[in-house]
Amino acid sequence: MTKNFADKLVEAVKKKGTSICVGLDPRLDKIPQSILQRAVGGKEKSPTAAAADAIIEFNKGIIDAVCDIVPVVKPQAAFYEVYGHEGMRAFEETLKYAKKKGLLTIADVKRNDIGSTAEAYARAYLGEVEMPVGDNEIVMPVFDADSVTINPYLGWDGVKPFVDECGRYGKGLFVLVKTSNKTSGDLQDLHLKDDHVLYEVVGYLVDSWGANEIGESGYSFVGAVVGATYPEQAKKLRKIMPRSIFLVPGYGAQGAGAKDVKHCFNDDGLGAIVNNSRGIIFAYESMNMPAEGYAEAARNAAIAMKKDLESVLV
Amino acid sequence: MTKNFADKLVEAVKKKGTSICVGLDPRLDKIPQSILQRAVGGKEKSPTAAAADAIIEFNKGIIDAVCDIVPVVKPQAAFYEVYGHEGMRAFEETLKYAKKKGLLTIADVKRNDIGSTAEAYARAYLGEVEMPVGDNEIVMPVFDADSVTINPYLGWDGVKPFVDECGRYGKGLFVLVKTSNKTSGDLQDLHLKDDHVLYEVVGYLVDSWGANEIGESGYSFVGAVVGATYPEQAKKLRKIMPRSIFLVPGYGAQGAGAKDVKHCFNDDGLGAIVNNSRGIIFAYESMNMPAEGYAEAARNAAIAMKKDLESVLV
Repeated sequence: MTKNFADKLVEAVKKKGTSICVGLDPRLDKIPQSILQRAVGGKEKSPTAAAADAIIEFNKGIIDAVCDIVPVVKPQAAFYEVYGHEGMRAFEETLKYAKKKGLLTIADVKRNDIGSTAEAYARAYLGEVEMPVGDNEIVMPVFDADSVTINPYLGWDGVKPFVDECGRYGKGLFVLVKTSNKTSGDLQDLHLKDDHVLYEVVGYLVDSWGANEIGESGYSFVGAVVGATYPEQAKKLRKIMPRSIFLVPGYGAQGAGAKDVKHCFNDDGLGAIVNNSRGIIFAYESMNMPAEGYAEAARNAAIAMKKDLESVLV
Repeated sequence: MTKNFADKLVEAVKKKGTSICVGLDPRLDKIPQSILQRAVGGKEKSPTAAAADAIIEFNKGIIDAVCDIVPVVKPQAAFYEVYGHEGMRAFEETLKYAKKKGLLTIADVKRNDIGSTAEAYARAYLGEVEMPVGDNEIVMPVFDADSVTINPYLGWDGVKPFVDECGRYGKGLFVLVKTSNKTSGDLQDLHLKDDHVLYEVVGYLVDSWGANEIGESGYSFVGAVVGATYPEQAKKLRKIMPRSIFLVPGYGAQGAGAKDVKHCFNDDGLGAIVNNSRGIIFAYESMNMPAEGYAEAARNAAIAMKKDLESVLV
């Protein structure tokens, strides 16, 4: 039987003793010169291929440095797509390498579409796809992430194909509920006729979408994205979705601290993973270290973040 | 000065005398065997590369067949991403070939994220990106689509980076407002305290986001996705967003006809483009033709759709 993704995640969190997710959001202008120089090839190599190779080497350095500390990493698709299909090759390679190093992965793609199209996304990122080989076809995984982020604006039939693939392959989902950005309230905080706020209704939907998908840990493989930058809203959402694991962005560079993320956890100290991207992968900047020391700096930053989270969770 | 995308689109619609958008949503199981056989290479070629090559040849056949009839095509990213980075190569090639054939393009990606991440998406699909070359760097376009679809759930700061790139490069946007799928009402039809419905509020937001982006045609480069499957809602939205061009899915395979899409147009016969994917690119099926005749069938289907739209628009 396929193991529920929520159980895998809870197990990984317990094993590592922390709920940190490292966001792999590479930016070329912050990648060490030595890596860029190795990536830039001869005239036959395209600039996008060079960018992709630099990202792959950089990410491997981060993954090697943090894989014994954290349970999960989250590459953000935009920073790969920006280099076209070569960038997506780096996205694939990053997911693959993280898995090889024993990490769970979240493909942060925030995909969304009508049913038949959502199915294609779900198969691409979580499931398997038929492909032609000779006169036959084979079925194989493509991105093979352990989980994805999705956007709920199209309602259930845009979500169901992801839930189906998750059930089939032991994968997971994080549905945007209350995002960490400044204007997330433009839509998400609209007051409804029944006195609820939109993000609360989305929270109830996410809870219902995951009601039949609960693992032995008591958590569902249908999780939620809840920004650490809105602690009061997180407190409400924790009650609305007691069985959903929260993916919590906003810690570090976006301004939220350990006290803010506390409300995203249940009393068992579980139920949330806290993402940190820039604060870990480019930690060398705030530590005033040379870029070449980025991996060591990332490791130290992950250890410091672990202590910071422990200070509010114990 | 950069020409406003809305003006380009209105000009193309007038030139071709129709508002059809052909949706390029390839599916390998409907692509002619001869194309698949050419695409499948030796042992050194990956199945995803073969799939991508088949899609490129199929799409070129469609584009050649319809480029003198329709003004715009819309590849749907999911059907490319399903073959990983090779699939995204087919996405790039398709956009490039359509442009070469004088067509405007909509990259149907429905991307969405917080500001700094949305900026990466906007630069990837609409703008330009810095890349390393030798000891220097160059700035070049990547996907270089004429426009994209985006999801509004994160509010203005997830939309602004796209608006900025559009202004800079003469590109356009279509923001999801009321989608064509069955459960679009789960969120979009929620009643708000002020007696509006959520999709109406999103309509007002889209109108305001585009208020300063209006071209000589009187239309804004900030458009809206409004499903043909909800004609009554479209009628309301036409009034709420008089200056936005609607990208209208749902015609054909999803069940809507010319009468339904009528409400998406303004009295000037402009203001909407009507997408048809399966009904054109796989028209050979409903015409009981062999798959090999897919391009001719697509051409005939586009001509028939043109007449169908004329019947309600004149």
